[in-house]
Amino acid sequence: MSRRTETRERVLRATVDTLATQGYATTTARAIATTGGFAPGVIYYHFEDLEDLLLAALRYTSDNRMERYSIRTANALAAGDLLAALHELYAEDVATGHIAAVQELVAGAVGSTRLSDGVRAEVRRWEDFTETLLVRLLDGTPLAGLVPSRAAAMAAMAFYLGLEMLTHLDGNRSRAETLFSAAGPMAALLDALAPRGDT
Amino acid sequence: MSRRTETRERVLRATVDTLATQGYATTTARAIATTGGFAPGVIYYHFEDLEDLLLAALRYTSDNRMERYSIRTANALAAGDLLAALHELYAEDVATGHIAAVQELVAGAVGSTRLSDGVRAEVRRWEDFTETLLVRLLDGTPLAGLVPSRAAAMAAMAFYLGLEMLTHLDGNRSRAETLFSAAGPMAALLDALAPRGDT
Repeated sequence: MSRRTETRERVLRATVDTLATQGYATTTARAIATTGGFAPGVIYYHFEDLEDLLLAALRYTSDNRMERYSIRTANALAAGDLLAALHELYAEDVATGHIAAVQELVAGAVGSTRLSDGVRAEVRRWEDFTETLLVRLLDGTPLAGLVPSRAAAMAAMAFYLGLEMLTHLDGNRSRAETLFSAAGPMAALLDALAPRGDT
Repeated sequence: MSRRTETRERVLRATVDTLATQGYATTTARAIATTGGFAPGVIYYHFEDLEDLLLAALRYTSDNRMERYSIRTANALAAGDLLAALHELYAEDVATGHIAAVQELVAGAVGSTRLSDGVRAEVRRWEDFTETLLVRLLDGTPLAGLVPSRAAAMAAMAFYLGLEMLTHLDGNRSRAETLFSAAGPMAALLDALAPRGDT
């Protein structure tokens, strides 16, 4: 990685961290520079303005997570395996600040057309990915063709963002853990309805 | 209604409207007074402080909507009828500013223990209500006993709040309409699995 790319990535990482820990309204160029331990000028060397940086940071964390989700779910064909993979990926979304940063951007983007266009494009990308997973999961089960996959993927995105909001409100992650536990028997049931070679 | 109760309700209504249209951060006593067309002093005659008012406004809109949800869903026993009732109630949640105000309070309450305690209590109340509806809906179907009703109610709350966030981002209600349409055939399927006397 070149020095220039390295610095750029450091700025992107600091932006995600600042969004995740301080929230959208407080994520100024100065706050990002403080988080990353560099001069604010570094930001404007790499990015046009703050919105440009916020969009690049969203794309950066989204690309990283999408790659990781793709790899980790590639062989999780059974519902039980997929649930275990998603639980692990969710824990990573939390640990990397991804989910908190994205939720802040979704909420904060409302005032700006450029920002909200960019955020909507990312939401669509994740809906596409979720839909693909869901179609693969239900293939061969009695639910294939019954569950409207695009709508279900849209509902899943809303659920994921709302869960993060409620988790902030709770001040702990117990809500997500309760839901992952409750989903276990349902995943087992789905696997029982369509046993696959790999289960 | 006494003059005093009338004024109190006017302040509560103005608070819900201000939260819904201007967002949490901008909902000051002055902004609420401007919305309602009264002097800011009126607020402090009826409420201890802004947090006290915000909590009372949450309880006010929540009580109103809970009463309406209870009445409207009381006889909607079949899934198709319940879906139609929920679609209508959701449109009212939008029109009254309820859903927008609640979403603002859930997001904004994070910084204050008193506020977040109050918001969490309301979230629990709605989860209780949703769980009751869900248990009644699935009773007699093959899904009764399979779907963990508490967890499903918690997931539904997260979905409801996340949907509002994404609707803000979209700038229109098309996302909710898509989901209500997609749910139609699934409700019909559920009714086919357990035909009830009233369908």
